[in-house]
Amino acid sequence: MGDADVLDVLVSEVGPRDGLQSVQRAMPTAAKVEWIRALAAAGVREIEVASFVPAKLLPQMADAEEVVRAARAIPALTVLALVPNLKGAERAVAAGAHKLTLPVSASRQHSMANLRRSPEQAIDEVARVCALRDALPRDRRVGVEANVATAFGCTLEGRVPEDWVIEIAVRLARAGADAVGLSDTTGYGNPAQVRRMFARLAREIGAERVGGAHFHNTRGQGLANVVAALDAGVKTFDSSQGGIGGCPYAPGASGNIVTEDLVFMLEAMGLRTGIDIERLIAARAIVADALPGEPLYGHLPDAGLPKGFAPATARPRES
Amino acid sequence: MGDADVLDVLVSEVGPRDGLQSVQRAMPTAAKVEWIRALAAAGVREIEVASFVPAKLLPQMADAEEVVRAARAIPALTVLALVPNLKGAERAVAAGAHKLTLPVSASRQHSMANLRRSPEQAIDEVARVCALRDALPRDRRVGVEANVATAFGCTLEGRVPEDWVIEIAVRLARAGADAVGLSDTTGYGNPAQVRRMFARLAREIGAERVGGAHFHNTRGQGLANVVAALDAGVKTFDSSQGGIGGCPYAPGASGNIVTEDLVFMLEAMGLRTGIDIERLIAARAIVADALPGEPLYGHLPDAGLPKGFAPATARPRES
Repeated sequence: MGDADVLDVLVSEVGPRDGLQSVQRAMPTAAKVEWIRALAAAGVREIEVASFVPAKLLPQMADAEEVVRAARAIPALTVLALVPNLKGAERAVAAGAHKLTLPVSASRQHSMANLRRSPEQAIDEVARVCALRDALPRDRRVGVEANVATAFGCTLEGRVPEDWVIEIAVRLARAGADAVGLSDTTGYGNPAQVRRMFARLAREIGAERVGGAHFHNTRGQGLANVVAALDAGVKTFDSSQGGIGGCPYAPGASGNIVTEDLVFMLEAMGLRTGIDIERLIAARAIVADALPGEPLYGHLPDAGLPKGFAPATARPRES
Repeated sequence: MGDADVLDVLVSEVGPRDGLQSVQRAMPTAAKVEWIRALAAAGVREIEVASFVPAKLLPQMADAEEVVRAARAIPALTVLALVPNLKGAERAVAAGAHKLTLPVSASRQHSMANLRRSPEQAIDEVARVCALRDALPRDRRVGVEANVATAFGCTLEGRVPEDWVIEIAVRLARAGADAVGLSDTTGYGNPAQVRRMFARLAREIGAERVGGAHFHNTRGQGLANVVAALDAGVKTFDSSQGGIGGCPYAPGASGNIVTEDLVFMLEAMGLRTGIDIERLIAARAIVADALPGEPLYGHLPDAGLPKGFAPATARPRES
């Protein structure tokens, strides 16, 4: 594994947050930390380790501070935390997160159901979090990424107008977000739409501020959407080990894209992720042991690597 | 549903052949015919209905003649039959198939194991089948498509040199095949390779002679590979209802891409397949009834269509 700057694509693991928050049982803190360490040891450079929501809403995330502190001690790992609001951001910063991610739902109904506020109010909250960031001393500066949820459709509203999604993204960039990503919260997105929307996002806010693509595999389109997003220049993809996870407020929307299958695809395409696939697959055992009976998804772990497979990360870089 | 010429993409259903030949039990002939009729009624325009191999090798295909004759009676359906050799081609032509497809494996080891002959011998056999075609009276003329199997790698040999795959495709075109497709028999392909290989194929034999793309979903890359192939100009995709099927001689290679998920993706992308998704999904019941306990795959049938989904086929065409 080389330095982070030699990566072609950043795989941002969201299993410990998006995955675990959709599982009824809480994974013990020690297991979370073991899992995060194993992922980092496999070469994962960024992990969304926790969500700073009130523990009464998501008891699975009650140990967010402890998990962030432990993850923070892992070298060369960017520790990402989801924060729904300023209060969550203050907690995450105090715990030592490197980067905060805030969801802003483009669907008004989903926004009210999920965050109990309008998209406009959610954008204002992002502005407040950016002000918090700007007030921090330089050596404690954090990154702020905003993510437009239900950007490709909503189980409650159906189609979400693309102009409105882009308008929200532009407002988030103006509010000070370092990067703005798009999330297919409901698994509604298709490759043509994904390519069009990310290309438009880059034109509107600048390619350097385009954040991650967050796809769900609800209708089996997850990796197809990744191919389209790559074409549009996207460099960061969310995924979760074993494909666990989903949005508890979007009925039918279950399952992030599977990290193992994503990393295999990218490496096979010649794109360096920095991740060792064998070690990544080995980390599944930690999840299986800590949450017995919980389904783990993924084709690659069953089928195995192709004979003679040469991952991009292991190849010497052409100069 | 309009005429075949308004399709943007042809989905060539291979379940009754590729799917059923990998299932141990034979589906009763009446159920096969009912399934083929239901698929055609849903708007599927081309179905690979049988394989003309000796019945002692594949008892599931012992009724190939009967199935072809029944399928031939369905209006607006192209009846495709797999034929391993001249003898199979003669049988398929006598039964009334519109089009023959011949596999030629690029992997020498796979070719010997699967067809008991070398790639060169298999190309010679395609030439003989083309001579048979040319000798038929005009009103009984059939199409001959050749398919390069293990074009993206082989479970026995590992990497298959891309130059060799293209060389075989060129020889097949010279031998007289009307179209030449590429098959990812083993589920080894990745989107970068798929795009590169199909683009190269079109340059070498002409875009109008590029046949179908046949992908397996062994490692979850099936639809991602379709997106890449679309970019390279491919217009025909093989898939099987419920994702049943695979190559019995390639260990670990199971499962064609799922027709339901493929059609959903294409229609969502604005590409007309002519297929009614609801009627397509309804046809699964015939397979489930005829082969109880046989696993049927697919994300869309479980998740359902997105709220407000507007398939391309149902939209008025912009002129």
